[in-house]
Amino acid sequence: MAQVLVTTVPFGAHNRLPLDLLDSLGVSYEINPLGRRLTAPELADMVGDAEVIIAGTEPITSEVMDAGRNLRLISRVGIGLDSVDLIAARERGIGVSYTPEAPAPAVAELTIGLMLSLLRGIHTANLGLHGGTWERFMGRRIPEVTIGIIGTGRIGSRVLRRLAVFGSPRILVNDLDPRPNLVPELKLEWVGKETIYEEADLISLHLPMTAQTRNMIRREHLLSMKKDALLINTARGGIINETDLAAVLESGHLGGAAIDVFIDEPYTGPLACIDRALLTCHMGSMSVDCRSRMEIEATEEAVRLFRGVPLECAVPIEEYQEQERR
Amino acid sequence: MAQVLVTTVPFGAHNRLPLDLLDSLGVSYEINPLGRRLTAPELADMVGDAEVIIAGTEPITSEVMDAGRNLRLISRVGIGLDSVDLIAARERGIGVSYTPEAPAPAVAELTIGLMLSLLRGIHTANLGLHGGTWERFMGRRIPEVTIGIIGTGRIGSRVLRRLAVFGSPRILVNDLDPRPNLVPELKLEWVGKETIYEEADLISLHLPMTAQTRNMIRREHLLSMKKDALLINTARGGIINETDLAAVLESGHLGGAAIDVFIDEPYTGPLACIDRALLTCHMGSMSVDCRSRMEIEATEEAVRLFRGVPLECAVPIEEYQEQERR
Repeated sequence: MAQVLVTTVPFGAHNRLPLDLLDSLGVSYEINPLGRRLTAPELADMVGDAEVIIAGTEPITSEVMDAGRNLRLISRVGIGLDSVDLIAARERGIGVSYTPEAPAPAVAELTIGLMLSLLRGIHTANLGLHGGTWERFMGRRIPEVTIGIIGTGRIGSRVLRRLAVFGSPRILVNDLDPRPNLVPELKLEWVGKETIYEEADLISLHLPMTAQTRNMIRREHLLSMKKDALLINTARGGIINETDLAAVLESGHLGGAAIDVFIDEPYTGPLACIDRALLTCHMGSMSVDCRSRMEIEATEEAVRLFRGVPLECAVPIEEYQEQERR
Repeated sequence: MAQVLVTTVPFGAHNRLPLDLLDSLGVSYEINPLGRRLTAPELADMVGDAEVIIAGTEPITSEVMDAGRNLRLISRVGIGLDSVDLIAARERGIGVSYTPEAPAPAVAELTIGLMLSLLRGIHTANLGLHGGTWERFMGRRIPEVTIGIIGTGRIGSRVLRRLAVFGSPRILVNDLDPRPNLVPELKLEWVGKETIYEEADLISLHLPMTAQTRNMIRREHLLSMKKDALLINTARGGIINETDLAAVLESGHLGGAAIDVFIDEPYTGPLACIDRALLTCHMGSMSVDCRSRMEIEATEEAVRLFRGVPLECAVPIEEYQEQERR
């Protein structure tokens, strides 16, 4: 009978402030007891009388909303809204909020770490040494390669700013909304995605999951990349077709890929058998400071609802329009 | 009967220019046929009539020099001189040169990659997923932690400059020669090594191997570090006592360690059984551009010798004095 259901886990583990906020208001809460991402039926079973879901990336479908008879707010801990049926929420008068700024610094920093690991073979050397083989890898430095960034919003632009300190690589960028002076200290070439696929040595995706980006990079795109190209996805699982990526890597094409996000998480697919695939567990936003900020901001929206004051990070109209176009 | 023995491998593999330099002068050369770091007896057997050794990090002892009856120059591909008996070389009139600037950008970039991997658990997540387990790691960003840099020369100062772009962590630095304005954009606290051991969350070593730094970090120093401290050595194997490090990690102390350099390479010791140990294969300088520059600079010294013009990177007197103090 909790008023707030927290589905994202861990929650309040490194900083109790979000739980204290709810306690101080006398709001009851329950935290996802399964400790992993829920399916829609599990969430429909669990939602009960909750007025607010403080949500991760689990699917929040019309069925979940119908099961949640008292549901008034879906407060996403994070930025992606592909998991929330915004149209169904609007039809039922359920508000949706998110925390668009908070994860960006942590995702950008993870991305730089994945870039350096791919470029220098840190991951393959480590797997090798832990398996008893010593094989020195001749890598490349950031200023030696052509970098392609697809998506230059909050996260992509932060990645670009951090790259500048490593020297002056050739940088190709793609976005629906090109901004010539995005990073004044870098010379950016605004190009089409196909140019990035064909010319970049290192490609990183910083896009939302939408009808346009789902399955955006398939077998033919992967094969159009350089034989030793490196590919990073810290955005959303399924923007790169997972099956195609595993098959193309398996065939010997591409130098490697760093994948943090998967269609089904926890991931157990064929990429786990490919040493050149550097795999992490949807950890883009998982730094203590960013995660705390996300949890606090999402909880503050719940507190505003209970206090009857306006939300500060209600999802903007453009996100609803995007889903209407699907 | 080659005039030049190249012991460091690979050599000329990504850029043939150093081999072309020797060819164009009509100088004969032989490249280490074993494809790995030589022992002193192996090198003594192999040196023959060579006038120049273009050398890696294998031990170049007085016995090697006595075996090399025509030896006139040891041209190190790299910066460390702990492997060369400088005093024995001077006594025999054998010159020694090195390439002190060339490796620094590649080592600094690898270090930043290792820092981000340790801070975000990239290596442990990847080992886990390749072994069938999905465990999300809550990491920390660079501006969240206190960073300790021991040694602020060519490499340490480059690491510091690259850190600045990630925000403003607390940075503790130690060097025999403190320079308050080393990195104007960062507020550096010049402290003793013990303060770094006790207060830093992330410690990185950028020191030469000398009598003072050999075995510098032992069990008692490791235990004085924070329980979740992270430790990086891209400098020389044996600055951290390897046996003590493995035992301390095994006991559960320290959050992790990234080790690129070992006393015996290829490394096959107990760190390979510890997931929190991120291990690479002495790859600090192994980027195509830096490695090429090192090989070219070392070969140019050999060319100068054969042409009878002065060396440009003869090892300075301080390095000989350092070895005399041992």
